[in-house]
Amino acid sequence: MGKCLGKLFDGGASGEPKPPPPKQKPAVKARTIRLTRGASRSEVIVVGQYLAVDLSNIASDDAVSYEITPYPKDDVIVSMKDERPRATGNVAAGGMDSALAKKMVVYVYARSHSVEKDDKLVTFEFSDANGRPAGQAELSLTAYFLSLDVDCDRDGVVEVNNPHKGTWEWGPRGHGAVLLVNNDNDDFEGTFDPDNKNSRIDGPLDIKDMSPMVVRMRGPPKLPAEYSIRLSTPPECAERMGVFCLQPDVIKNDRRLEDLSNMLNEFLTKPTEEAPDIGLNHVEMRDLMGNLIEEKEKDEQPKGEDTPLKSENHVMGPDSGNVVELDYRVDLRDNTATYEFAVEGLHYPDTMFDGQVSITLTLQRGRGSPIYEDTVVFQVAPWIMTPNTLPPLEAFVCEMEGGENLSFIQELQEVTSAAGVPLVIVPQVVNRGDRWMQGKDFGYVTRFSRTEEPNSLDSFGNLEVSPPVTANGKKYPLGRILIGSTSPTNQYGRRMMKVVRSFLKAQRVQSPVELYSDWLAVGHIDEFMTFIPARGGKGFRLLLASPDACYAYLGWLQSQGHGNVPLFEGKERYGFSAAVTVDQLLQDSKLREENQVFQDDIDWNRDKLKRELGLTEGDIIDIPALFKDEEGKGAGSFFPDMVNMIVLGRHLGIPKPFGPIVDGACALESYVKSLLQPLGLSCNFIDDWSSYHLMMGEVHCGTNTLRKPFNYKWWHVEP
Amino acid sequence: MGKCLGKLFDGGASGEPKPPPPKQKPAVKARTIRLTRGASRSEVIVVGQYLAVDLSNIASDDAVSYEITPYPKDDVIVSMKDERPRATGNVAAGGMDSALAKKMVVYVYARSHSVEKDDKLVTFEFSDANGRPAGQAELSLTAYFLSLDVDCDRDGVVEVNNPHKGTWEWGPRGHGAVLLVNNDNDDFEGTFDPDNKNSRIDGPLDIKDMSPMVVRMRGPPKLPAEYSIRLSTPPECAERMGVFCLQPDVIKNDRRLEDLSNMLNEFLTKPTEEAPDIGLNHVEMRDLMGNLIEEKEKDEQPKGEDTPLKSENHVMGPDSGNVVELDYRVDLRDNTATYEFAVEGLHYPDTMFDGQVSITLTLQRGRGSPIYEDTVVFQVAPWIMTPNTLPPLEAFVCEMEGGENLSFIQELQEVTSAAGVPLVIVPQVVNRGDRWMQGKDFGYVTRFSRTEEPNSLDSFGNLEVSPPVTANGKKYPLGRILIGSTSPTNQYGRRMMKVVRSFLKAQRVQSPVELYSDWLAVGHIDEFMTFIPARGGKGFRLLLASPDACYAYLGWLQSQGHGNVPLFEGKERYGFSAAVTVDQLLQDSKLREENQVFQDDIDWNRDKLKRELGLTEGDIIDIPALFKDEEGKGAGSFFPDMVNMIVLGRHLGIPKPFGPIVDGACALESYVKSLLQPLGLSCNFIDDWSSYHLMMGEVHCGTNTLRKPFNYKWWHVEP
Repeated sequence: MGKCLGKLFDGGASGEPKPPPPKQKPAVKARTIRLTRGASRSEVIVVGQYLAVDLSNIASDDAVSYEITPYPKDDVIVSMKDERPRATGNVAAGGMDSALAKKMVVYVYARSHSVEKDDKLVTFEFSDANGRPAGQAELSLTAYFLSLDVDCDRDGVVEVNNPHKGTWEWGPRGHGAVLLVNNDNDDFEGTFDPDNKNSRIDGPLDIKDMSPMVVRMRGPPKLPAEYSIRLSTPPECAERMGVFCLQPDVIKNDRRLEDLSNMLNEFLTKPTEEAPDIGLNHVEMRDLMGNLIEEKEKDEQPKGEDTPLKSENHVMGPDSGNVVELDYRVDLRDNTATYEFAVEGLHYPDTMFDGQVSITLTLQRGRGSPIYEDTVVFQVAPWIMTPNTLPPLEAFVCEMEGGENLSFIQELQEVTSAAGVPLVIVPQVVNRGDRWMQGKDFGYVTRFSRTEEPNSLDSFGNLEVSPPVTANGKKYPLGRILIGSTSPTNQYGRRMMKVVRSFLKAQRVQSPVELYSDWLAVGHIDEFMTFIPARGGKGFRLLLASPDACYAYLGWLQSQGHGNVPLFEGKERYGFSAAVTVDQLLQDSKLREENQVFQDDIDWNRDKLKRELGLTEGDIIDIPALFKDEEGKGAGSFFPDMVNMIVLGRHLGIPKPFGPIVDGACALESYVKSLLQPLGLSCNFIDDWSSYHLMMGEVHCGTNTLRKPFNYKWWHVEP
Repeated sequence: MGKCLGKLFDGGASGEPKPPPPKQKPAVKARTIRLTRGASRSEVIVVGQYLAVDLSNIASDDAVSYEITPYPKDDVIVSMKDERPRATGNVAAGGMDSALAKKMVVYVYARSHSVEKDDKLVTFEFSDANGRPAGQAELSLTAYFLSLDVDCDRDGVVEVNNPHKGTWEWGPRGHGAVLLVNNDNDDFEGTFDPDNKNSRIDGPLDIKDMSPMVVRMRGPPKLPAEYSIRLSTPPECAERMGVFCLQPDVIKNDRRLEDLSNMLNEFLTKPTEEAPDIGLNHVEMRDLMGNLIEEKEKDEQPKGEDTPLKSENHVMGPDSGNVVELDYRVDLRDNTATYEFAVEGLHYPDTMFDGQVSITLTLQRGRGSPIYEDTVVFQVAPWIMTPNTLPPLEAFVCEMEGGENLSFIQELQEVTSAAGVPLVIVPQVVNRGDRWMQGKDFGYVTRFSRTEEPNSLDSFGNLEVSPPVTANGKKYPLGRILIGSTSPTNQYGRRMMKVVRSFLKAQRVQSPVELYSDWLAVGHIDEFMTFIPARGGKGFRLLLASPDACYAYLGWLQSQGHGNVPLFEGKERYGFSAAVTVDQLLQDSKLREENQVFQDDIDWNRDKLKRELGLTEGDIIDIPALFKDEEGKGAGSFFPDMVNMIVLGRHLGIPKPFGPIVDGACALESYVKSLLQPLGLSCNFIDDWSSYHLMMGEVHCGTNTLRKPFNYKWWHVEP
C-alpha cells in the first residue's frame, strides 16, 4: 500500500466496520497548513502532532478523484478524519460545487523523527474523470521529536510524554507534578537567607528539594534557520517559581534582548519626539531597561569564587523573565538530546495564586505564532501543619539570658529524653531574646499587610491543627487548621490578619476553622485547648481547659475534708506569696463569677469544635483550669494552665499546677493523671511558674516541636 | 408521659428497635450549658437550637437514678443523644466511678416560642438506691424564634429557615441566594454615578435590583436585659455589599460606638502616656476615629430635601461597618416581628473575592460569645457577556462631529430596522467624542492596575464571547470568553492587563480562552473573527478572516477572465485612488508573502478555537480578507474587513468590501452571500470606508449591541 486512494463525491471507501465512537479525550492539537496547486511546501512536523493539510486550493474544477502517497509508508500516516489515523486513510470529501466551498483537509501524522532534512514526502495528486492530472502538490516533511516532561505520577520517574502532564487533578485518582517551596536553607553556614530568597543553586542538597523537568529532542542535526525552541511561562508564573538548567550552555542568549538594547540606546540618546517606536509602552520600557542594566552589571562582575556563576542562576524566574531560548543541539551519534532542568517553588498558594504554574516548550517559526507547544503543569505543595498526634522528631526551646529558664530546660529534657526526642536548645542570638518559641519568628512563612498591623492573634500559638477528622460527611485526612479570632459581632475585636487567614485558606488541604479566643488577654487558642494521641476512640482526645471541672473538683476536695489545704504553696506572685487554701478559693465569688463567663466562652468553642471536627463528648476531656480577668484586658490563667503542654508521642510535658498536697501528692496532678494515664499517656509536670507562667505563657508557648510529616499525600485530598 | 425516667449504669432503657443510622446532615448546633446542684438556672433558648445541658455536677455520689420533667410535655423535648430527640429520651449514662468523670449531658429542644418569660421549666432530680433525693436542679427556659432568611432556591419567595440557606452550591442541583451587582443607574437624571457608587436607595426601581433578606422573630414582648440581637458580616464582606433596612427605625444606635466616643475624647485630650488603654491598636483607632467623625458630620447636615435621610443609608456596607444591632420589638397582638432588608452587591467576583458573602444573625449575651447564630450566604452574580447568537434588544452607535458618520448611521439604520431592533444614536457629549463603541468607555466594569498601563488590547473589541459550546467533555452553557494576547513566547508583547484577565477568570461561568492577536497593529480579535447564528450544525458558525480564501477567490476570478476588473473603484486612501485590478493585486508578491504569514497567525487561532470550543471544520467559514503590514506595527486590514460585522439576529451589517464588479455586482459581496444566505442570513453591506475603515476599524468596532440575556441560569453552571 503506502497510498491512500479515493473518489471524490462517494460517501467513503468502505464496507469496513465503523470504529467505536471516540471516548472523551483532549482535543487533538492539529496545526493547519495550506498547500498551493503545483507547489512543493517544506514543513517541519513534530512527532505526535497532526498537520491539518488544507487541499482546497489544489484540485482544478474537473477533479473527481485523488491519490495521496505517503513515503515511507509506515512512517507518515494520512487520514481524512480528525482522529488518530490508521495506516490507510478513510475516504470522504465534501461537495465540489464551488471551487472554494470544497474544504478538503487531510491529517498528516509522523510516527518517528527524521534523520535528515526533508526526508519524508507526501504527494497529493488529483485526476479528472478520464484519469488525467487535475492538480497536484507536494509536502516535504522534516520530523522532530520534542517533549517537555515532568514526574506527573509522582513516582520519581520523569515519564516521556505522559498524557496527563498538562493538567492537574486533586484526589486519590488524580495526577500532576508537584513543586516544593524551597524554603529551607541548605547553605545555612553561608547566609541566613532561605533558598527561595536567592536565585542560585546552593549545592547538591538544594537540587533534591526541586522537581526535575526534562526537555527531550530527537531529529536531524539542525533546525531550519528561521526556527527556534523556547521555554516560556506566563509572566505571573515566573514570579512564583524558579527554573535552573543543569546544562546551562544550552541556554541561548536572548538575541531579542540584544536587538532591543541597541534600539534602546538609540531611544535614550534621541529627543522623545524622534525616538523610534519599538512597540513598548513606558512601563514595559522601564522594565526592559531594568533588565538590561542588571544583565550588564552581572557581566561586569568578576567571576571570582564568591560570585555565583551565570550557570547557577535561574533561567526563568522573578529576576530572569518568563522566556528562554534553548539551543537545538542533538548528539550526532543517535540524533538525540536531553536537557535537564530543576524547578523550585518560590511561593506557597495564596489568595492571588492557586498554586498552579505551567511551563511550555515551543517550536516557533520567525516572530510568529508557535507551530508546536507542549505544556506541563505543576502544583506548588501547600503549607501543611502537623498535629500533636504525629510522632515528634525534634523539640526546640530557647535559652534565656542569665540561665533564667535553665531548670525549666532541665525538666523538659527529662521528658524529651523519655520520649527519645532530641531537644534543640536554640541559643539566644538566633532567637533575638524571645522566650516564645510559638512566637512570630518561628515557622517559615511570613505574610505582611499594607493595611493592617499585626497583633497578638497573629502569633503561632494561635494557630493549631487538629488530627485527621471527618465532619459533616467530609473527610479531612490532614486535619483542620484552627485559628483564634474575635467574636463575630465584635466590630473592633482582634482577628488574625486577613492576609494570614486568606493564606491559610488558600492551602486548601487543612480547611481552617475560626475559633473565639479574643476573650483571652493574650488571645491564643493554645490557652484553652490541645490535642493528645490516646488509646481508643478516634485515636486522640481534645483537652479543654475547664473552670467548671476545676470548681467541681475543688468542691469535692472540700467535701473530703481538704478545705484548708493550700494551693501554690511557696510560689510568689508580684512579690507576695501566691498561696491560697481550697476553702478561700471556693469562697472567692468574684473569681467564680468571672470563670462562669470564661466557661461560657470555652463552651462556645467546645460546641464549634464538636460541629466542625465531628467530635462527640467522648472525644473531649475537661482539664481543671481557672482564669482571672487581667485588668479588663481579658482572661489570663490563674495557675499554670495544664492544657498548654508539650506533646511528644505518649509523653506529655504539662505545666505544673502547684495544687493542694493531699496524701503527699498534688491533687490536681493526681486528678489529671487519673484522666490521662488510662489512655496510655505519661504525665510529666514541669515547673514553668517563674520562667513562663508569670509572663502569661506556659510550656507549649515556650517550646516547639518538629514532627514526622503525614504519610498521607496532600494531593489525595478531595477537592 | 411528660417525664423522662432512667436508671444510671444500665445500658439504656430498651428493647426499642435502633433508629436507622443518621444520614449525612449538618452537625446539630448544640449549645453547652452547665447546671449546679440545687440551683435554678434561667436560660434563653432559640426554637430549633439544642441545649446540651451538662448535669455532671448535680448528682451526689450515691445517686443511681434520675427523673427529668419537661413541662409542657409536648413543647420541650429532652433526649440523651445528640440527635433530633423523640418525645421520650433514650436512656444512657457514663460511669459514675468518679464524680467528675461522669459526663451526664442531656439535650433540650424547644418546639415553639414562649409567650412570656420563663414559661418553660425542666427539672432534673436524682435519687439514691432507696429512692431518696440525691441532687436536683431546675432549668427555666424562655424560648424565642429567630430566623434570618433569603430566597435560596431563587423562586422569588423568602422561605422560612430553608435548610440550605447557609451554604452555596453550583450546578443544576445546587442552591443558594443570589446577589446582583447594582451597577445600573436608576436615578440617571440626577447623577451619572451608578447605584453601587452611592449608599442611598435611589427610589423603588433601585430596590428591585436587590435581593430580599428577612429577619423573623417570635417570642415574649421583651428580651432579657443583657441580651442583644445583631446582624454582622465579616469585615471583608462589608466592603463588597450593601444592606438597606426597609424599617430603619428598628436599627439601634451602636451603643458601643457612643461609649468609645467618650473614651476617645478622653484619649485625644490626654498626653499619650496617660491615655486609657481601650484595647485598640493605632490602625483600629484611626479607623474608629474616621467613623466617628463621619457620623458626626452626617448628624450635623441639615435634613433638607437634597440630603439623603439616614434611613436611606446602608446599615452595613463599606461606609457603615460590618455589625448592626437590631431592636427586638414584637407585635403584641401575635408576638411576632418581621424586619425586611434589601441587599445589593457592590463588586463582581474578582481574584481576591470569589463572590460569596455571608450575613449572620446573632443572639448575644453581654460582651461574650454568641448564644445563637443563623447565617445566610449570597453569591454575587458574575459579569456575563452575551454572544452574537442571542437576540439583539438595542443597537448603539456614536454620532460624530460634523455628521462625519451620518451616512454610515443611515445605512446601519436600515439593518437595525429590518432586524426590528431600536438603534440608539449616542450623542457626542456622552461619548466624549470617541467613535469606537467597543472602546474603553463602554461596558460597566472598570479595572485599574497600579503597575500596568492599559494598552490597546484592553479594549472591548478584544473581548468577545462564543456561543454555548462543549469542548473536551466540558459543557460551557454560557459560552467561553475570548481575549486577544501576545504570542506566549514573546516576553515584551502586548497582553490584556493581568487585572482584566484575572477579573474575567474570576467570573467562572464563561472560562476565558486566550487567543493570539498581537500580530495585528490594533490587536483586537474582532479583526479576524466573529460568530453568527446559523441554520444547522451547532446553530452557529465561526467566521474567520482568510487571506488564503481571498487569494483563491481572486485567482478564480482571474481564471474566469476578470483579471482586469478593478477593486476599490472610486475610493481613496491617503488622498490617492485606492483602485487596483485583480491582476495587479495577485501580482503583488510582497502583499502575498505578508498575507501568508498573517494566514499562519489566523490558523494558529483557528486551531486553538477548534480545540478550546470543540469546533470542527464544518463549524467554520472562511471569509475573504487581506491584511497589510502597517509600517512594522503589525497587520491592518487592506480593504474593509468583512468579519468585523454587526450581528442582529439573522441580519448582518457587513463592512462593504468594494470588490471587483462582475455581472453588475460586487463579486466579494456575491461570494459572501453565497456562503451565508443558505444558512438563513441576510447580508447587508454598509459603507464604512471613510468613517471607520481608514481609521483602522470597521462596523463592529463602531457599534455595540445590547442582547437578551441567556435563559440559562448562571448558577446551574457546573463548578
